[in-house]
Amino acid sequence: MSANPAKALHLDDLAVGDAFTSAEHALDAQQIKAFAAAFDPQPFHLDDEAAKGTLFGGLAASGWHTAAITMRLLVTGGMPLAGGIIGAGGELSWPRPTRPDDRLHVVSEVTGIAPSRSRPDRGIVTVRSETRNQRGEAVQVLVSKLVVPRRPA
Amino acid sequence: MSANPAKALHLDDLAVGDAFTSAEHALDAQQIKAFAAAFDPQPFHLDDEAAKGTLFGGLAASGWHTAAITMRLLVTGGMPLAGGIIGAGGELSWPRPTRPDDRLHVVSEVTGIAPSRSRPDRGIVTVRSETRNQRGEAVQVLVSKLVVPRRPA
Repeated sequence: MSANPAKALHLDDLAVGDAFTSAEHALDAQQIKAFAAAFDPQPFHLDDEAAKGTLFGGLAASGWHTAAITMRLLVTGGMPLAGGIIGAGGELSWPRPTRPDDRLHVVSEVTGIAPSRSRPDRGIVTVRSETRNQRGEAVQVLVSKLVVPRRPA
Repeated sequence: MSANPAKALHLDDLAVGDAFTSAEHALDAQQIKAFAAAFDPQPFHLDDEAAKGTLFGGLAASGWHTAAITMRLLVTGGMPLAGGIIGAGGELSWPRPTRPDDRLHVVSEVTGIAPSRSRPDRGIVTVRSETRNQRGEAVQVLVSKLVVPRRPA
């Protein structure tokens, strides 16, 4: 469920340029429609026929579904941080739609590390996570700032 | 499900400063744990006891769950745009945790409007959506750029 604690990385273990690759998630139309029914009930996420006449030109996953799958991939081994993956927010873009037959994985890179001035036991790590389909095309780019603890003395 | 088409707003109908308030969503621990099990399986989103010893100090919703609920509130009347709510991405922050007994609503404000130069039938509308709990405290701030069609001639 969460990363193996023995392998979990503390702030001290990270360097700018470090990269991580997640496992893969196989999407399908049923998952897309179930998420949409719960959280984003719009025709282009719910119904194959209705989606054809929209800007998407066919069924596409909600961007928030892509974001949620990305988080699952990061949490289940794609980004093995001590203390878990705790973000205060980020910048999100969806360069192209996520489709029913997509297989997604996430490639993350550490782009910044800033020790906390107020809390010496932790730091803020900036991570750029690209969610890619089976053709290596980015369907989401997330730049997030994560709270990462230092290794206890 | 989607906004009443008769009331849906086109680009021509919008002005900077226009504001919208969504309906309310009542959260509970079961919803928080179900979303977390599917997409963000970390102890502070899954288990009341385990959450007490974490940075959250108690059960809290995944930020991605707050984002998904926000989208549902926007899509189901909170932001009645013609063509639906189609975003290319945005900036997201979670200023404080979302808790099991929270009742959430979303207050959105149009902060920018830019007609498309390449596609005269649409424009990009910047919207700042604040998701607030029952005490009026912001649990999420989302600034998104949405594709909004012009009214057909």
